[in-house]
Amino acid sequence: MDAAEFRRRGKEMVDYVADYLENIEKRQVYPDVEPGYLRSLIPEEAPEEAESYEDVFKDIERVIMPGVTHWHSPYFYAYFPTANSFPAMLADMLCGAIGCIGFSWAASPACTELETVMLDWLGKMLKLPEDFLAGTEGRGGGVIQGTASEATLIALLAARSKIVKLIQADHPDRSEMDIISKLVAYSSDQAHSSVERAGLIGGVRMKKIPTDNKFSVRGDALQKVLEEDRAAGLIPFFFCATLGTTPSCAFDCVTELGPICNAEKIWMHIDAAYAGSAFICPEFRPLLNGIEFADSFNFNPHKWLLVNFDCSAMWVKKRSDIIGAFKMEPLYLKHDHQESGLVTDYRHWQIPLGRRFRSLKIWFVFRMYGLKGLQAYIRKHVELAKEFESLVRADQRFEISADVVLGLVCFTLQGSNELNETLLKRINNARKIHLVPCQLAGKFVLRFAVCARTTESRHVQEAWCHISHLASELLQELPH
Amino acid sequence: MDAAEFRRRGKEMVDYVADYLENIEKRQVYPDVEPGYLRSLIPEEAPEEAESYEDVFKDIERVIMPGVTHWHSPYFYAYFPTANSFPAMLADMLCGAIGCIGFSWAASPACTELETVMLDWLGKMLKLPEDFLAGTEGRGGGVIQGTASEATLIALLAARSKIVKLIQADHPDRSEMDIISKLVAYSSDQAHSSVERAGLIGGVRMKKIPTDNKFSVRGDALQKVLEEDRAAGLIPFFFCATLGTTPSCAFDCVTELGPICNAEKIWMHIDAAYAGSAFICPEFRPLLNGIEFADSFNFNPHKWLLVNFDCSAMWVKKRSDIIGAFKMEPLYLKHDHQESGLVTDYRHWQIPLGRRFRSLKIWFVFRMYGLKGLQAYIRKHVELAKEFESLVRADQRFEISADVVLGLVCFTLQGSNELNETLLKRINNARKIHLVPCQLAGKFVLRFAVCARTTESRHVQEAWCHISHLASELLQELPH
Repeated sequence: MDAAEFRRRGKEMVDYVADYLENIEKRQVYPDVEPGYLRSLIPEEAPEEAESYEDVFKDIERVIMPGVTHWHSPYFYAYFPTANSFPAMLADMLCGAIGCIGFSWAASPACTELETVMLDWLGKMLKLPEDFLAGTEGRGGGVIQGTASEATLIALLAARSKIVKLIQADHPDRSEMDIISKLVAYSSDQAHSSVERAGLIGGVRMKKIPTDNKFSVRGDALQKVLEEDRAAGLIPFFFCATLGTTPSCAFDCVTELGPICNAEKIWMHIDAAYAGSAFICPEFRPLLNGIEFADSFNFNPHKWLLVNFDCSAMWVKKRSDIIGAFKMEPLYLKHDHQESGLVTDYRHWQIPLGRRFRSLKIWFVFRMYGLKGLQAYIRKHVELAKEFESLVRADQRFEISADVVLGLVCFTLQGSNELNETLLKRINNARKIHLVPCQLAGKFVLRFAVCARTTESRHVQEAWCHISHLASELLQELPH
Repeated sequence: MDAAEFRRRGKEMVDYVADYLENIEKRQVYPDVEPGYLRSLIPEEAPEEAESYEDVFKDIERVIMPGVTHWHSPYFYAYFPTANSFPAMLADMLCGAIGCIGFSWAASPACTELETVMLDWLGKMLKLPEDFLAGTEGRGGGVIQGTASEATLIALLAARSKIVKLIQADHPDRSEMDIISKLVAYSSDQAHSSVERAGLIGGVRMKKIPTDNKFSVRGDALQKVLEEDRAAGLIPFFFCATLGTTPSCAFDCVTELGPICNAEKIWMHIDAAYAGSAFICPEFRPLLNGIEFADSFNFNPHKWLLVNFDCSAMWVKKRSDIIGAFKMEPLYLKHDHQESGLVTDYRHWQIPLGRRFRSLKIWFVFRMYGLKGLQAYIRKHVELAKEFESLVRADQRFEISADVVLGLVCFTLQGSNELNETLLKRINNARKIHLVPCQLAGKFVLRFAVCARTTESRHVQEAWCHISHLASELLQELPH
């Protein structure tokens, strides 16, 4: 395919993409296929000879679309949202064409510099403490990671490296292995599975702190475990607080936890993967109070801030902590400017070496929406969730399982877990809307997350009618 | 921006992308900007109100392009190639529109299934042993990782988990920490910095095995270190072999190393990040001999196989090894089909949870080029490297520093390291072409890697004339 054909096919693809997104609600949100469906639809081997583009293009509808879960359908209420906006897609096209690998400043200065400045823009939108911004002379700064899982892992590894150095400074005879074997990290019992996984990868103990009746970690709960662990000769070094947990969008009490972590020299990382986007609205910013105590902070603009996946924003107060943990300098990656304070080599900030020019997406989205447009988007989703909450509350057969703070509503049909499992199965089997469950205090709970950019009140009303109808059917079938 | 405006802007962007790539050689390959250049060109904060698309679009040339290192310029000979093709860009547009997050089969069946089948296609193109293919009943299979760094890390972590379980099966009293503190991993002293970093992240010793005069690890060198380490009470558990090292594209002797690793129950991972693409050509496939001894294998189609970044292909013989190391099953990620043998939940195979629909790029590229087209592309780059090698060899002032096997030529001007450092500085300062150095046996060596899809013989000839001219100038300035 030469540039001339690309011009033609690219424009066709733009129309296909626009058609897909404009008409997405006509597609069934969750596919009917069975595992293994795709293999039989295509050849067993790659073709020897080039095929025509027409043949490839036709196969999008024949092979791919029947197996797609449409995350951008207004009938998709599962997991958490993943972002999708036209400006982000335009920026991604540009990113693909430039196709630079931005592992160091020299590998493409624009790629590194736009990222630093965009993370400063975003940090200011969130009113992050000055310490987290790079500016021209700051010691902190931001970076785009692929996912929140990577951000948590990086924070944990940086904290691990820091505590080892700190202890070895006083006890030069203690081996790294010996110290690591005594380390203990903490998170909420509601924290995402990726936090536990970060502990597993880093080879350190990870303990879950029990939450209160709002599914929130409180200061005294952490304090208690810290005392027990210190008494047992362990070394607490890392606490991952969650703002907006995955099961119920609960918020750890960072204003209580932060001072404890600071006093105990424990690295506090805040994971606000989903909720973080909301903090650009003044009315939701108090949810981030206590951020001043954190060493690192992360949230995913690729969830709820209209920047297509992947774009997970992470800030650290001291970039030397993160760089110190991973720096390697082979000659083939050295360049003239790297000793300058203005230069950031992002490869030291992340697990992969290579990286795409992802800040273009942030730049396009923030400029095309403006702060007000982004705030309006967040507010609309929260209103839709509140609307759904009211519908649930108005129906005596149901109950709300957790405070509705942002765009997630957790609810159950009054009755057993089995009843709710059956209800969810019927909802998903009907294929009209798509939800996933969670577990809260031993209960099987349904999660209704406002996800798609195109979700409107009528979709929420329709979804509720449908759920309510299926519940009625189910309850009628029960023996009285 | 609504769909109607996206149709218009998207088509403009397609033309911009085509113009950029068609005319890329007219742009200076390496930018003139100084560190910090970009910050002053744009506002300090995100705009409150939405801006017009025209204003954003204009800034691509004003703000971004002056700071771009043009990796797809035919004058770019630095690092290793990164792929860029029109079919891959079309597939990426589709990927962005579908915008699904494929962490489990249910999250988007097409995303998972196409990936499994594409990795089988690619595995067959490479003539991988059957064990590495998923098929419908295989125990192995492939996965797309973001980068080779992640693949190496995943392999090391899987090996770590496996050896711990193995030892604990015989010695239930030995703690994981105690075992990990005795583990030792190995790689070539020529291995990429990411391999050492994987050891650092995994919290295990990593030793570098000295290479022979071809920069290749041989069996006896590994055997010697293994014996010493076993005698010292350490537990060897992981060897990362490199096929096509970053400094000089050297090949570890896998046919010697593999049987040793198998006999000693050491996980052998093969990292062929750059060279792997060449193995689709029968004449280069012998370089992969010994793969039958490996537990895992990885290379980057996003380097040299026309699939835009990121797309790092990894295969394992036993997927249970990799899944066993990381599996976590929170309720919100469970789905009906996950106990079925046909279902792959790729989140257990990787560090991040989220993942894009990257297999679309492979599918488009393989079909639009065909195996023959891809082979022709590899062969052309190797021929261009050989052409450059001949030019260097024909000039008595220069010497070739390592065997030219694929698309990389390592060479020096006869004389001191300082002389070569000066020559490289002048080459890069002239901005006509872009190269990076490496270190080989204590020598500062220039690397000439054929990178861009559009590189032709005339570019290579021009590059050589330029280098030769700068060398003449430099030599004339030296005191006789």
